Amino acid sequence: MNSAAVQLNDKHELRHFLSIEGLRREHLERILDLADSFVGVSTRAIKKVPVLRGKTIVNLFFEPSTRTRTTFELAAKRLSADVLNISGSESAVLKGESMLDMLRNLQAMHCDMFVIRHSVSGAVHFIASQLAPGVAVINAGDGCHSHPTQAVLDLLTIRRHKRDFSTLKVVIVGDIAHSRVARSEILALRLMGVPDIRVVGPRTLIPTGIESMGVTVHDRLHEGIRDADVIIVLRLQRERMCGFLLPNEQEYFRLYGLTEATLAHAGQDVIVMHPGPINRGIEMESEVVDGKAARILEQVSYGIASRMAIMALVVGAAPT
Amino acid sequence: MNSAAVQLNDKHELRHFLSIEGLRREHLERILDLADSFVGVSTRAIKKVPVLRGKTIVNLFFEPSTRTRTTFELAAKRLSADVLNISGSESAVLKGESMLDMLRNLQAMHCDMFVIRHSVSGAVHFIASQLAPGVAVINAGDGCHSHPTQAVLDLLTIRRHKRDFSTLKVVIVGDIAHSRVARSEILALRLMGVPDIRVVGPRTLIPTGIESMGVTVHDRLHEGIRDADVIIVLRLQRERMCGFLLPNEQEYFRLYGLTEATLAHAGQDVIVMHPGPINRGIEMESEVVDGKAARILEQVSYGIASRMAIMALVVGAAPT
Amino acid sequence: MNSAAVQLNDKHELRHFLSIEGLRREHLERILDLADSFVGVSTRAIKKVPVLRGKTIVNLFFEPSTRTRTTFELAAKRLSADVLNISGSESAVLKGESMLDMLRNLQAMHCDMFVIRHSVSGAVHFIASQLAPGVAVINAGDGCHSHPTQAVLDLLTIRRHKRDFSTLKVVIVGDIAHSRVARSEILALRLMGVPDIRVVGPRTLIPTGIESMGVTVHDRLHEGIRDADVIIVLRLQRERMCGFLLPNEQEYFRLYGLTEATLAHAGQDVIVMHPGPINRGIEMESEVVDGKAARILEQVSYGIASRMAIMALVVGAAPT
Repeated sequence: MNSAAVQLNDKHELRHFLSIEGLRREHLERILDLADSFVGVSTRAIKKVPVLRGKTIVNLFFEPSTRTRTTFELAAKRLSADVLNISGSESAVLKGESMLDMLRNLQAMHCDMFVIRHSVSGAVHFIASQLAPGVAVINAGDGCHSHPTQAVLDLLTIRRHKRDFSTLKVVIVGDIAHSRVARSEILALRLMGVPDIRVVGPRTLIPTGIESMGVTVHDRLHEGIRDADVIIVLRLQRERMCGFLLPNEQEYFRLYGLTEATLAHAGQDVIVMHPGPINRGIEMESEVVDGKAARILEQVSYGIASRMAIMALVVGAAPT
Repeated sequence: MNSAAVQLNDKHELRHFLSIEGLRREHLERILDLADSFVGVSTRAIKKVPVLRGKTIVNLFFEPSTRTRTTFELAAKRLSADVLNISGSESAVLKGESMLDMLRNLQAMHCDMFVIRHSVSGAVHFIASQLAPGVAVINAGDGCHSHPTQAVLDLLTIRRHKRDFSTLKVVIVGDIAHSRVARSEILALRLMGVPDIRVVGPRTLIPTGIESMGVTVHDRLHEGIRDADVIIVLRLQRERMCGFLLPNEQEYFRLYGLTEATLAHAGQDVIVMHPGPINRGIEMESEVVDGKAARILEQVSYGIASRMAIMALVVGAAPT
Repeated sequence: MNSAAVQLNDKHELRHFLSIEGLRREHLERILDLADSFVGVSTRAIKKVPVLRGKTIVNLFFEPSTRTRTTFELAAKRLSADVLNISGSESAVLKGESMLDMLRNLQAMHCDMFVIRHSVSGAVHFIASQLAPGVAVINAGDGCHSHPTQAVLDLLTIRRHKRDFSTLKVVIVGDIAHSRVARSEILALRLMGVPDIRVVGPRTLIPTGIESMGVTVHDRLHEGIRDADVIIVLRLQRERMCGFLLPNEQEYFRLYGLTEATLAHAGQDVIVMHPGPINRGIEMESEVVDGKAARILEQVSYGIASRMAIMALVVGAAPT
């Protein structure tokens, strides 16, 4: 399916937010600029702006994720929207109704936006393509495919620390193959003009041919992160892997776990990021998580601002 | 229990909304008029009116129904009320507290309204009879007994398409015996003066003596829907039936499933309704669901407006 | 851990609300005075004050309690705050993230307050000691340790009926050893200057050495409640006990169940309280629950006002 065709309106504005694919750098910059302006809202005494007052936003999580759902719920409430939470398991799907009939029902209730997480890659695109023009869809993660709001919040975090994307060395470490974050991340960094993007991890967890996305592949961590400005460590999705792809966790940590010692190979002002939740002692040692390079909790803060910006933009681009 | 005595106040205003039984045509017309005025609220940029601002509404679903709960939650939020969702399974009932003690507690917290779904017929009436004067109760479906808000939204859908109830031919198709919709529906149509109400379905699913409610019974679908203005197709509640009441689903569809072909026997401007969720290919073929006669998604929209109207009225009739 | 150090700020204001221990009488009186002023909010037509508008409050229940969670949710909404409900079971804890990392995440989202219930005594103190200065914590019950908001609402109930604490005889009946209420209650009553506090119950359910808290211990109910002004009956936490601590329930009721007959031994204007949910016929007979001495439903009403007061105070004492 052509993402651009689905997620942009006639004026090339963001109509849905489904994937980084199909976007132009201007789209990302517009989101980041608006997100920047929302960062301050969450530190005010009254953490609310009336941007989406009287709008109805439905969190539709076919796959459970309290963490991601919470960030969208907070973002929506800080925009003054009304929020409905529907988990896939409790939905009418169980009564034999098709997912599309359920969505058409919510659409008939004049809901303005669906924030959807689904375990099947492409499911969110499909849903967006089937809905009426007045309803916006945001992809909160589908299968291994993409998690584009995570990519946006990572860009925001990077931009607030490293002004110029065009000189950056960015490294992504870990399970590239099974991560819904990695693919969105690489596309977004490329779009912003990052010249040096590297991936590091066990060969079994690096998709073959990934070089065609414009990245270089490294086997050894200390080589991969040399002089890096930004290190994005991925969560080890243990539940997604068959046992034979990976040595045991101790071995993984020994080879790819980020430590203060290894970090010395990176650039002087390197920042370390992680989409969370962190497996301390597996993807990185606690000293790094709580250390001065870590921007992991800032990512969480910027995640609220980023999601507020995306929500505000897609509703703003709705046909009236 | 005398419904009128429980659900009307001294001035014969709606104090609770428990069942169609005991209401007068004026009650329904007042609800429909107010619902009409609320239809537009859900299509505004700011989908909110301050009618119930600062009121607390509790959705108390002893029997799960995400779908119905969602419509009440949205209706309440569009009236600016605060909403609490309590499912029966998580409630203190499990800790050995009686349902009435739990309700008295919520009442002591100065909740203004309970929206209750319960699997036992009459349970909602009983609860309403036990509460203090200041708390309103709305029946969101009890056992096979009644589902009066569904009847109201169906009336609203009919009225917006067919101005005059006094000339209508309305047909209800399906499992009349186990449906909590059918009984409320027939009572409501009668009250509005519909002269020709028919039920169609397998004899095993039609209660004996139903003719005393003022309906005619038909065995064959194409005969039953002849010249009909409105066809209300019921959901086949497979989980409610013992196997021997019914042939298999294919056979049911062959005999009672609504198709475009059968629909040719109905009146020219016939509208087709269904309370949802639909079993496509069992109660009706997909072509009918998505066809030009279907008003099924409009029913969902009018369901919000109808529930807003009922909520506003019962709170308005509360003693002050 | 030193409660005072954790829950008070430099100006000795309530920064968190973790336990009665470490508080001074002025703290309790300030809460009670503010709670008194909030009692009326819940009986207004618009049950809302803008005290916490734009604040985000997270109900974090590692141990399920719909009842207690509901009172905090209502209190927060009546203060116009936004509320997030997260149950421990659905939280990221299951994904291997530590509780503290989860809390730091919520903190990074600029949540203003956590209302926490946890099954481990001291867990809530520990959490409060780990969070940033800007976040307030309220203990909604931890282990057998304490349930301080229950103690406050009980004080409020007593104060609204018996003006002067300094002349009162207060009796606590039941399972003192396993109750998270009893300990908080005794400390609070002492702090308010109640001169005569008695506990009554089977020896197996009375902690040895409890006299050091300034209470007298009685084996026999009618002796224990003689001339009492206030009787607080505890819930029999059957799930917390091994079978051998207690005779069967009939025997418990015979010895310690409060009846109208026994109540004759108490003072003339005695009031009877219970934290709920009540086991009718075990802790007291239904005639007492629904009788003229019972203040059990008032406790529920005052529980909302008390929690509103505590929430407003701890946010007000936050560093700005």
